Amino acid sequence: MEPRNLNEEQDQNSWALNAWTLLSKLRDQSPLIQCITNFVSMDLMANTLLSAGASPAMIHSIEEIQDFTPHIHALCINVGTLSPAWLPAMREAALVANKAGKPWILDPVAAGASRFRLEACLELVGLNPSVIRGNGSEIIALSKASLGATKGVDSSHESMDAMEAAKSLAQSSGAIVAVSGAVDIITDGHRVVGAHNGVSMMQKITATGCAVTALIAAFIAVDPLHALEATASALSIFGIAGEMGMDMAKGPASLRMHLIDSLYNLDQAAVSSRLKVTSL
Amino acid sequence: MEPRNLNEEQDQNSWALNAWTLLSKLRDQSPLIQCITNFVSMDLMANTLLSAGASPAMIHSIEEIQDFTPHIHALCINVGTLSPAWLPAMREAALVANKAGKPWILDPVAAGASRFRLEACLELVGLNPSVIRGNGSEIIALSKASLGATKGVDSSHESMDAMEAAKSLAQSSGAIVAVSGAVDIITDGHRVVGAHNGVSMMQKITATGCAVTALIAAFIAVDPLHALEATASALSIFGIAGEMGMDMAKGPASLRMHLIDSLYNLDQAAVSSRLKVTSL
Amino acid sequence: MEPRNLNEEQDQNSWALNAWTLLSKLRDQSPLIQCITNFVSMDLMANTLLSAGASPAMIHSIEEIQDFTPHIHALCINVGTLSPAWLPAMREAALVANKAGKPWILDPVAAGASRFRLEACLELVGLNPSVIRGNGSEIIALSKASLGATKGVDSSHESMDAMEAAKSLAQSSGAIVAVSGAVDIITDGHRVVGAHNGVSMMQKITATGCAVTALIAAFIAVDPLHALEATASALSIFGIAGEMGMDMAKGPASLRMHLIDSLYNLDQAAVSSRLKVTSL
Repeated sequence: MEPRNLNEEQDQNSWALNAWTLLSKLRDQSPLIQCITNFVSMDLMANTLLSAGASPAMIHSIEEIQDFTPHIHALCINVGTLSPAWLPAMREAALVANKAGKPWILDPVAAGASRFRLEACLELVGLNPSVIRGNGSEIIALSKASLGATKGVDSSHESMDAMEAAKSLAQSSGAIVAVSGAVDIITDGHRVVGAHNGVSMMQKITATGCAVTALIAAFIAVDPLHALEATASALSIFGIAGEMGMDMAKGPASLRMHLIDSLYNLDQAAVSSRLKVTSL
Repeated sequence: MEPRNLNEEQDQNSWALNAWTLLSKLRDQSPLIQCITNFVSMDLMANTLLSAGASPAMIHSIEEIQDFTPHIHALCINVGTLSPAWLPAMREAALVANKAGKPWILDPVAAGASRFRLEACLELVGLNPSVIRGNGSEIIALSKASLGATKGVDSSHESMDAMEAAKSLAQSSGAIVAVSGAVDIITDGHRVVGAHNGVSMMQKITATGCAVTALIAAFIAVDPLHALEATASALSIFGIAGEMGMDMAKGPASLRMHLIDSLYNLDQAAVSSRLKVTSL
Repeated sequence: MEPRNLNEEQDQNSWALNAWTLLSKLRDQSPLIQCITNFVSMDLMANTLLSAGASPAMIHSIEEIQDFTPHIHALCINVGTLSPAWLPAMREAALVANKAGKPWILDPVAAGASRFRLEACLELVGLNPSVIRGNGSEIIALSKASLGATKGVDSSHESMDAMEAAKSLAQSSGAIVAVSGAVDIITDGHRVVGAHNGVSMMQKITATGCAVTALIAAFIAVDPLHALEATASALSIFGIAGEMGMDMAKGPASLRMHLIDSLYNLDQAAVSSRLKVTSL
């Protein structure tokens, strides 16, 4: 068993070093991240991106896509408060990002809540996102293309229950698929890794899922060729910020504040000592 | 006077026990609360519901109502940033909730600010909400069906000034009517109770009124047959969280944080010792 | 040099006294400020106005302008998440405010991000705003009527780089023009003053620029005839609140909280000892 443990330790060190390198790049380069997202999450998403070092732009009007989207470094599309009026801009932004060679990520919030929402999500899945991140129920709904797995926006499935759905969705879509949960799962359809950082109280803060999706966008902006590693790194960094925030928090609202402060102040020592990514 | 005092004390104990029982149920059952609400309040409203134990879903598109609304446990409609495009979904959601036997609550923000807004509110009042909660000026505007009592979204009337308007509106609409103020008034048109918890600085935080309306939705979700008691309980619980938050706050922004943390951590001892509801 | 220093000191005292007088008036009069603004900033903007003593109203529907806007004390228009559907109401509100003699302020967020946005901003500039506040890149884009100076919503120019653009825009528009930066610049096209308060971490909080624009609206509401002085005062007061918040902050999220608390608690001694406005 010793060699195995040694390898695991080397793996942890290598993941931690990579995550730290990406966060440092992000702080240096301040990538411009366009977010077409829901009304609930805009504040936390923008503040998460700013604290991590990125430059957020909540620009959602279809009239602006052709001028603006070619200049971004990554795009985040989130369907949380979807209405038909917003869908064409999402479509257009995805196409322009693809054409310009910019990575984009889809957050299929509550994908199974209605036929309209599911179809919108499936259409967006078909537009070649680099990454799809959701909770267990959302990924299962997308993978099966069926309603009913989601109870509102909160998951009724553990991430592990969605592992096969995630692999299947990754294979059919060509995207990296990430499933948030007690352990975050990240897969390209073949390889599966688990990101173990974070605390359960983060689920009691609205839009933490949306915020980490935006953070993944910033990470893939600085390392578009290694989307699986960038995704696992972003989930780990956000989880570590949550753990450090939890040390100071008295409840969900103070956790939210301390999480953002911790993300802003995160240093290599904390990343090295806390990050935990494993092969699953 | 002794018997009277004794009765009052027994009443307080009974109200406190009921409020605690409902909060415990809410934490156990995690009811799904659909919010069709304004852009300003979405963050605080979702976080208030999560901290109380409910599961919020900000889903406002008319395309989703038929699929989604039958599965909710209560509906919250708030007209804060109303536009004509949102009104049909509000109407439809109210009708579907009624048909499915799910309670719903109306927050007629700034009802008297314009003819358009007043007419929209009056139409929604006609769709059989279980509860209507507003400030004094809003309830007076609705009751008189006239503009001008409201100065923007902040009340220019004390809740007590609106007591007759509240009773009249409750009688004509069949809804429980709650008026927020230094003392919150709750009436079914005949019986009137006052909820005395809370601190004045809560008015210096945007969307606290919207947030407590959503909390009432969660309380009536777990006790739909006793809407008056559930409404008074929610107002009291939110007020107690505000009082406990105030003990730690240095201003409106820290109060907002401590209020949500306190709501999350609220225990029976605090409810028992602090809750104050009286007959008016 | 002594007389010069003495004059400067007298100037500081006079600016500090004026800023304090305006803040006191604002707290006394609680002016009603209509905000037609972006989705990201609504929460912070409303809380900033409430903490300063104003009464915010986020009412953006064109159906409400004729009834509501005549009763406001100032109007804030912010194009952050602009879409074509919102533009007619912005136009109409500006016209009604002008007709009613109420001051209004324009925040041309990311003015150079697209042709659509630039043209919308230029049209609004033509509707006689009392004040225009942006960052360096936005003011340069407006002044030159050309795209490309703005990278998303964050400035790629220091405020000082935009001084000539600000003067030129002030002269052509007739508005007071304010450029946020390490030093905030305020000009009527001839006279230029610099407001030196604030801390750089405020840029790591989303919507602080939008929030100070709304605060300027509240200041010009109580002193519409001295828009340059009111604008410099609002920028200084917000900057001082940021400095005081920074003494307690551990990162951007706690700074946001402490800034709002500090604004609420601000007293004359802090304004007198900290305010720094100079002629440039």
